[in-house]
Amino acid sequence: MISESQAGRLQQQIDFILEIDQLKSILRRSYLLNEQRRENSAEHSWHLAMLAIVLSEYSNEPIDVNRVIKIALLHDVVEIDAGDTFIYDTVNKETQAEREKAAADRIFSLLPEDMRVEMRSYWEEYEEGKTPESKFAAAIDRLMPLLHNYHTKGRSWREHGVKGSQVMQLNSRIDKGSHTLWSYARNLIEQAINNGYIDE
Amino acid sequence: MISESQAGRLQQQIDFILEIDQLKSILRRSYLLNEQRRENSAEHSWHLAMLAIVLSEYSNEPIDVNRVIKIALLHDVVEIDAGDTFIYDTVNKETQAEREKAAADRIFSLLPEDMRVEMRSYWEEYEEGKTPESKFAAAIDRLMPLLHNYHTKGRSWREHGVKGSQVMQLNSRIDKGSHTLWSYARNLIEQAINNGYIDE
Repeated sequence: MISESQAGRLQQQIDFILEIDQLKSILRRSYLLNEQRRENSAEHSWHLAMLAIVLSEYSNEPIDVNRVIKIALLHDVVEIDAGDTFIYDTVNKETQAEREKAAADRIFSLLPEDMRVEMRSYWEEYEEGKTPESKFAAAIDRLMPLLHNYHTKGRSWREHGVKGSQVMQLNSRIDKGSHTLWSYARNLIEQAINNGYIDE
Repeated sequence: MISESQAGRLQQQIDFILEIDQLKSILRRSYLLNEQRRENSAEHSWHLAMLAIVLSEYSNEPIDVNRVIKIALLHDVVEIDAGDTFIYDTVNKETQAEREKAAADRIFSLLPEDMRVEMRSYWEEYEEGKTPESKFAAAIDRLMPLLHNYHTKGRSWREHGVKGSQVMQLNSRIDKGSHTLWSYARNLIEQAINNGYIDE
């Protein structure tokens, strides 16, 4: 038998689980590799957690992989209210932090207090970007869209008029999390320019 | 600088990452809560990893949550080749194990040897269902479709002519991973029958 307070706690947890189903309807700019549709933020979060598992050996600093995985799973949940902000969108970038903070306040407060604090801490750690884990998470969060763009011949870059120099500059921050992955990514961007997927 | 053997290893890991993008195009029977489309197996795997984090306290036995998360992230990757087999589909159930084993052989072999062994071990652990972690993962993997079905008024159950007695019987295995979650789930199924979402 479950006590009444236990039942209340479980229902809060279930309410959070039901709420985050909406992340599956938040569309990103990236296309799937088969180009059939744009990617959503829930499946992107899954893919990022897989990158964390498979690529963790390339982090510049020693990291707790399990923490990177949790950061990856939770880092985009605020987009349920705030939407996905395109990395090259300078206008919406200005209000992004404020919109996402309000979203975090609402969404994480669905959880029981102890869990609200823990879940929010993963998101805040990612936003602050100071720990080795958050730097590595940010690196793979930039690598994945590069892979999607390169292997769809720059489709999303071209649709949004993004230039090679912008791609190079914004993604150079991958280096803060992983020199090896930045070396790989830089080579990919150069190849994309050489192949004509994107203008210099 | 990366050595040639390092570059080969990294490219194998990237190839695996690109390959599993296909899981985003494998459709399940469940509908999203907003009923706009059916759910895919990649976003389902993300959701399941979130359930692992949020509900782990209800496991019957002590568990390593980080292992449950990895099992959740990897448990459906074989569907890229084998497709999603509906839990109530007795015909395709017969060939499921064989199809999924062949898929695991091919997909995990994209990875470097050490990683192939590790990744495959999570999938095998889930399939065998003997450890506390795999029992809990199986419990939440059954709970989530129940939640989707209940909150879409039994849409997927009705589309496939599933009966309340079948739902009750197949999902009773939740009890092996969590008495608390089975108590919650059983109540949900009873309410679904009472509300006319599903026939007895």
